[in-house]
Amino acid sequence: MDLTTSPKGQEILAKLQVFFDEHIYPNEQAYAEQLHHAENRFAVMPLMDELKDKAKAAGLWNLFVQEDHAEYCEHGGLSFLDYAPICELMGRVLWSPEVFNCNAPDTGNMEVFMNFGTKEQKEKWLKPLLNGEIRSSYAMTEPQVASSDATNVQLSIVQEGDEWVLNGRKWFITGAMNERTKIFIVMGKSDPNNESRHLQQTQVLVPKDTAGLKIIRPLTTMGYDDAPIGHAELVFENVRVPVENVLAGPGRGFEIAQSRLAPGRMHHCMRLIGIAQRSLELACQRVENRSTFGRKLSKHQSIREEISRCFSEIEMARLLVLKTCKTIDEKGPMASTDMIAATKTTVPLMVQTIIDRCMQMHGAGGLTEDYCMAEGFNYARWCRQADGPDQVHQMALGKQIITRYAG
Amino acid sequence: MDLTTSPKGQEILAKLQVFFDEHIYPNEQAYAEQLHHAENRFAVMPLMDELKDKAKAAGLWNLFVQEDHAEYCEHGGLSFLDYAPICELMGRVLWSPEVFNCNAPDTGNMEVFMNFGTKEQKEKWLKPLLNGEIRSSYAMTEPQVASSDATNVQLSIVQEGDEWVLNGRKWFITGAMNERTKIFIVMGKSDPNNESRHLQQTQVLVPKDTAGLKIIRPLTTMGYDDAPIGHAELVFENVRVPVENVLAGPGRGFEIAQSRLAPGRMHHCMRLIGIAQRSLELACQRVENRSTFGRKLSKHQSIREEISRCFSEIEMARLLVLKTCKTIDEKGPMASTDMIAATKTTVPLMVQTIIDRCMQMHGAGGLTEDYCMAEGFNYARWCRQADGPDQVHQMALGKQIITRYAG
Amino acid sequence: MDLTTSPKGQEILAKLQVFFDEHIYPNEQAYAEQLHHAENRFAVMPLMDELKDKAKAAGLWNLFVQEDHAEYCEHGGLSFLDYAPICELMGRVLWSPEVFNCNAPDTGNMEVFMNFGTKEQKEKWLKPLLNGEIRSSYAMTEPQVASSDATNVQLSIVQEGDEWVLNGRKWFITGAMNERTKIFIVMGKSDPNNESRHLQQTQVLVPKDTAGLKIIRPLTTMGYDDAPIGHAELVFENVRVPVENVLAGPGRGFEIAQSRLAPGRMHHCMRLIGIAQRSLELACQRVENRSTFGRKLSKHQSIREEISRCFSEIEMARLLVLKTCKTIDEKGPMASTDMIAATKTTVPLMVQTIIDRCMQMHGAGGLTEDYCMAEGFNYARWCRQADGPDQVHQMALGKQIITRYAG
Amino acid sequence: MDLTTSPKGQEILAKLQVFFDEHIYPNEQAYAEQLHHAENRFAVMPLMDELKDKAKAAGLWNLFVQEDHAEYCEHGGLSFLDYAPICELMGRVLWSPEVFNCNAPDTGNMEVFMNFGTKEQKEKWLKPLLNGEIRSSYAMTEPQVASSDATNVQLSIVQEGDEWVLNGRKWFITGAMNERTKIFIVMGKSDPNNESRHLQQTQVLVPKDTAGLKIIRPLTTMGYDDAPIGHAELVFENVRVPVENVLAGPGRGFEIAQSRLAPGRMHHCMRLIGIAQRSLELACQRVENRSTFGRKLSKHQSIREEISRCFSEIEMARLLVLKTCKTIDEKGPMASTDMIAATKTTVPLMVQTIIDRCMQMHGAGGLTEDYCMAEGFNYARWCRQADGPDQVHQMALGKQIITRYAG
Repeated sequence: MDLTTSPKGQEILAKLQVFFDEHIYPNEQAYAEQLHHAENRFAVMPLMDELKDKAKAAGLWNLFVQEDHAEYCEHGGLSFLDYAPICELMGRVLWSPEVFNCNAPDTGNMEVFMNFGTKEQKEKWLKPLLNGEIRSSYAMTEPQVASSDATNVQLSIVQEGDEWVLNGRKWFITGAMNERTKIFIVMGKSDPNNESRHLQQTQVLVPKDTAGLKIIRPLTTMGYDDAPIGHAELVFENVRVPVENVLAGPGRGFEIAQSRLAPGRMHHCMRLIGIAQRSLELACQRVENRSTFGRKLSKHQSIREEISRCFSEIEMARLLVLKTCKTIDEKGPMASTDMIAATKTTVPLMVQTIIDRCMQMHGAGGLTEDYCMAEGFNYARWCRQADGPDQVHQMALGKQIITRYAG
Repeated sequence: MDLTTSPKGQEILAKLQVFFDEHIYPNEQAYAEQLHHAENRFAVMPLMDELKDKAKAAGLWNLFVQEDHAEYCEHGGLSFLDYAPICELMGRVLWSPEVFNCNAPDTGNMEVFMNFGTKEQKEKWLKPLLNGEIRSSYAMTEPQVASSDATNVQLSIVQEGDEWVLNGRKWFITGAMNERTKIFIVMGKSDPNNESRHLQQTQVLVPKDTAGLKIIRPLTTMGYDDAPIGHAELVFENVRVPVENVLAGPGRGFEIAQSRLAPGRMHHCMRLIGIAQRSLELACQRVENRSTFGRKLSKHQSIREEISRCFSEIEMARLLVLKTCKTIDEKGPMASTDMIAATKTTVPLMVQTIIDRCMQMHGAGGLTEDYCMAEGFNYARWCRQADGPDQVHQMALGKQIITRYAG
Repeated sequence: MDLTTSPKGQEILAKLQVFFDEHIYPNEQAYAEQLHHAENRFAVMPLMDELKDKAKAAGLWNLFVQEDHAEYCEHGGLSFLDYAPICELMGRVLWSPEVFNCNAPDTGNMEVFMNFGTKEQKEKWLKPLLNGEIRSSYAMTEPQVASSDATNVQLSIVQEGDEWVLNGRKWFITGAMNERTKIFIVMGKSDPNNESRHLQQTQVLVPKDTAGLKIIRPLTTMGYDDAPIGHAELVFENVRVPVENVLAGPGRGFEIAQSRLAPGRMHHCMRLIGIAQRSLELACQRVENRSTFGRKLSKHQSIREEISRCFSEIEMARLLVLKTCKTIDEKGPMASTDMIAATKTTVPLMVQTIIDRCMQMHGAGGLTEDYCMAEGFNYARWCRQADGPDQVHQMALGKQIITRYAG
Repeated sequence: MDLTTSPKGQEILAKLQVFFDEHIYPNEQAYAEQLHHAENRFAVMPLMDELKDKAKAAGLWNLFVQEDHAEYCEHGGLSFLDYAPICELMGRVLWSPEVFNCNAPDTGNMEVFMNFGTKEQKEKWLKPLLNGEIRSSYAMTEPQVASSDATNVQLSIVQEGDEWVLNGRKWFITGAMNERTKIFIVMGKSDPNNESRHLQQTQVLVPKDTAGLKIIRPLTTMGYDDAPIGHAELVFENVRVPVENVLAGPGRGFEIAQSRLAPGRMHHCMRLIGIAQRSLELACQRVENRSTFGRKLSKHQSIREEISRCFSEIEMARLLVLKTCKTIDEKGPMASTDMIAATKTTVPLMVQTIIDRCMQMHGAGGLTEDYCMAEGFNYARWCRQADGPDQVHQMALGKQIITRYAG
């Protein structure tokens, strides 16, 4: 298995590294301060817009777009394998993906439009998304049911005349609070009596300003509001959209959901490698500059063992991501579910543990907003719930492996 | 070893349980909303003041006061063992200890005044603290050194005439932001050339409004500001206080610091048992009310194993706390350092793991502010750093055990 | 909860400590050598018989007997709580329980006779067992089914005239190889069509020399044959015993099995605390006497952290055992299943981890037969399977806890 | 990084797979029985010799030989990367490497001869080793010092006239008991006053039948004697060998030791992947064929989670091994110490955990000699001590990583 990235991928990565050194790292404090003093934490940030312009100018735009969607980007598309180190680098600064129009959930939503959108839908929503002019949300999880089983979804979608009428409640809807977010892709149940549990769902497009759609509140995860993107709770009360707002067609909601999640899971893992790697580097720098009881922390045997563990685990996590990427590139996501599940259920937990260790070595400061570790920890933690809790994927993976060896 | 609490302890616990059912649990949502909508998150909260009055009226006040300080309370003092289940119960609602004037860091500060204060200092500061009229802070940790080695403390305390002059920087100063906080106990270095590293430190009292003392900012841990108590960063620039503001005397700072920490560590652990227990109960309720793939979560074998682990670990953690309490009651804290260190380095980490499991079983909602779990997780996490990172206590405990068996 | 042992318990413990110092520890090497050079590793060992005589003479005999069976011993019976530290002490030398007639499976078998035996059965088998003249086995586990679900048991027991006829296979039959073992208690299925799955089983007594009963081979666990007691695989081919050899009566096999296991599980855990404690002491001595890279091992921070963890975990494991013992003493085993399951599923795994750490600190020698650690590790490991794998008990415990908090 | 093996490597692997199907797996029971009934467990086994002849005939001989030693084998040498999956396959049957003359410690010893032997030494010892006619041992570890610090070695080597005189004690000398073992490479201290701690050691060749060399006993690890290769304790009492028996030259002992260990560590890890993979397959088969409480084990959610974890961890461990191999192939072992240390300190512990889980899923049988799991567990466990305990390598790796990021 050849895990070497292509010359194009290497070239973009090199440019991105330069961009980070020139524009991202030097702006971390400014970004934190703008956000801290923002009246509305979900408003457009001036610094972000400046950086987006620079990224576009540098040809570092829409890097997530894959080769089979080459027409939607200027770089001609990148393989999963090529994108992995690029996305890892973005993971080092958690707000940076948006600079390159590479942030969740917009990337996944744009892919949904590419794969399932009509010409009109693409023109209206995909184009401004690709330009970074608007943002979008994907509304799937519901507070009242275990949404990890997608067939549990209860939001009702009923056709009345030439309209879809939506009623229900959603939460953890990433991006919904953001001022620039204009469109929601909403998963609901349109055909609850269909004998196939996987044909009961439909996805429709709901503009954010549609009557009856209320944003109740932003949610926090482990204390973070993840502004300016964030996660919201929504209520749909007799929300009406035209029939042509359906995606792909009635009854295809489950299919779209399945197609959407593989890249998203992998992108999370790639970014988590980046934040884990950065946490390790921060811990190394700290232990070299602190002393207790007359001895540099870096000379304590336990510190060296912890650093050693972090290094080894990051190596393994990164290799797992790369192999899964290569497998997807070669066989497609449907034939790679074992590797995707292995990655999704392994990397976030490992990274959580790695960052926990780095914070502990770093001392109390490591828990604060002065460093990226606590936020990275939170990111790793909620990834164990996002896109289905790990246990659901382990259920499927375990079953598949048992069949493989005892079938 | 008799771990039975006294009749008095049992009686107070029973009254406290009634109080929780009547006044605390029913007010959780109201409290969250008052805090959420507060203009100043560190201001006095009306609800808190109402509850404090009720607690006083119910004889549930200053429950932390020990038997040897009976004169400072109406209940005549409680042993460590008696206080453990009381404090555990308070841990179930993280803001509730203040209702009973039992919150950190005020409890520790009041004990310092009881043990080391002059008559005047007690009259001026201890009395209103015991009445819950003012709040206090304990300023020890510094950003620029590894403060887990207390001899590293750098804030300079110099006598000039009949004044102490303080210069330096502190952070993680719990309570400093709170509007009612009026007095800081500040640890600094007054005699850096003393050949004994443990006689170089002095503690002085600094009223919050003293010129030259600036509160720079509140800090967050893992995303939480822990308002309305919180943790702040402070700067001391030529802060001047009268010589009589010294605590106990020059050079006794280290001694005071040592005496102060044992109860604080134990109180944290007691409360953590409470929040862990409540997280387990919440998880049990959730898994009984959710289904995936046609099966109640509570019937999944993995869920039962996780619940089982949580139960067993809480049992052990609680027993360890109780044994340590009993040991302190019998031998005093100085002869109980092994058990205190074992508790301090074990319980927070166990509780962090327990709550992590409960959040995972609970689904994404468990990560939000709708439940107490994420905040409890954060509390457990920072306790691994508070009062010295676990590693420092393990260093001492390991050394002691090796000497015991190989001396 | 009062975890103080009774004066009688303390007195016996003190005598036992003296006995260990005088007769057990000084004979460890001799025992190892006798066993090593034995032609038949399952034969009677001269040293064991000498020590048994001394133990009897010292009044340290049948210490496992409980208060409600006082007539079977001279000491008047011990509570679970009293027995815990006594049994822990025996756990420090894994072959020592037999010296005091306190070894598995004979203790459990003797209890079965006490509880369910007829006068004749007691006279014939219990009496010589109590005297230490013969040994016994309990034949329950079968190789072809998951025996953790006792209703899976397949060995067929059919009544023909005035005889029971047994056909089937058993394994992990502890003690079966031992030369002195004379009697097997055999669990089988006598009424497979009974609509209650718990009334299909019967237990009958089968003398070891009965025709048709073949001992196929000794089994090893993790490389250990556990001689001279050991674990065997057996075949029953038309084994015939008189009808009066039934225990308690037909259909009561499951009931007997249930009653038998609680004390056995607790005794294992008590002994495991002993071997864990001893491993910790050995590790302490080793790290104090070894140096690497110019520094005593005991001065390495990582060693101190590991020692600290071992100490804390042993404290917790011991407390859990004691609380469970006290609960059984007060409420009986049937009302203590939650605490028994918590102990059985927690302590062996903890002890395995503790000994693993101690072996690692001890260096390669710790893995050898020169120290008791590897054998203790093996003991802890198979206890996770013995008396039902942990998962089965976690299933029941988890269910019980969920019902408690969400019922 | 291209982790694809070469066509030659793939061809040999394919042939080896056929050989395993035809000759190794079908002979596992026969091998176990021959060893079980052997009068001398360290004698030559007839079955082994038959299989060795077949392996030679099939061109599957000395597969460990690397490309830079092509003259010593017929296959022209294999890279580390090519050898990894071959060695992994051998790891599935722990006694199989000897069939292909690929077993430790002979492979490492042969490499020492290739790298440091004189023409005469090669003729006398390397040639019959390469032919599989004799076996060898490498005597480094000593019972009285922490040998993980190689400079601690105490065995005295003194030149008297034209002889070296050796006095000292060694243990864990793998292969020493084996009947065919003829030559020992012995590390000792020849120049204790040399100011460089790394120039004090010398290695000399000691034929097994030299006067004064006594094999005291075989050692067990975790209950296993690892016959017919095994580990022995040795005493050297005025053992005399000619001066020409020195390897490379006086004072070069440390250098030889360093050069020898990298491949050995990697080979252990490769084999451990094989035994972990096989344990997973055995567990899958077992859980598919067992039921408890009316439900196949394979349908329990906890089983699926455990299987899932094993799969993911094996993937990561294997990738780490492959990357390290590729790094060594490209940069040489000296520039790959970070990756080698990461692999050596990670894979054995992971495999130990994986097999532990598989044994638990497999039920009590999994602990016995009927399956390869317990022996694999033991192998993984002692690898954490072999070639230096993990902690020593973590010390070096941690230091290196800290320097990398904070240098």
